[in-house]
Amino acid sequence: MFRQVISFRWAEGVSPEARRAYRDALDGLRAIPELLALTWGDDAGHFDDNFDFVAVMDFADFETARRYVAHPLHQTYVRDHASRVVAERVVVQHDWDPPDP
Amino acid sequence: MFRQVISFRWAEGVSPEARRAYRDALDGLRAIPELLALTWGDDAGHFDDNFDFVAVMDFADFETARRYVAHPLHQTYVRDHASRVVAERVVVQHDWDPPDP
Repeated sequence: MFRQVISFRWAEGVSPEARRAYRDALDGLRAIPELLALTWGDDAGHFDDNFDFVAVMDFADFETARRYVAHPLHQTYVRDHASRVVAERVVVQHDWDPPDP
Repeated sequence: MFRQVISFRWAEGVSPEARRAYRDALDGLRAIPELLALTWGDDAGHFDDNFDFVAVMDFADFETARRYVAHPLHQTYVRDHASRVVAERVVVQHDWDPPDP
């Protein structure tokens, strides 16, 4: 499996409505077959230094993750949502072996 | 479930041996019963801007995550490893509902 973890801070002045629309658009990416698993959440607010949001995405491998990025749904998500609401962004990507079920 | 995601960059000049010792110490935290799941990985190196390492940890809730932080094994891990090898660090914590098995 190939995991991608994206943490970010909201850009300044992003409205609650724009955040909601972002989260909905992110959930819409589940329709892309290459995206095998997606977990995301708004920071719980226990610590002031934390970033605001994180998404953990799993793919079969790096090549399928690249196909996901190129998918029209993902392109629209970036253009209409991510590029407008995300400020600082930190990404880590790594291979991993899921535990046996 | 309560998820904690920590992304970081290695401090400058950290040796491969110190990185290995850090990873081993991190794996040693699995002995703490409050830590229900741990996945970590070194960045795959596809993109220069990525951070170096990420760890995804799951707990039952925030309170048990606090007990994990206070556990002697975790205190030793911070003192002898994390505090020595980690430079920039980004944290996000959020509640989430795991999918039904």
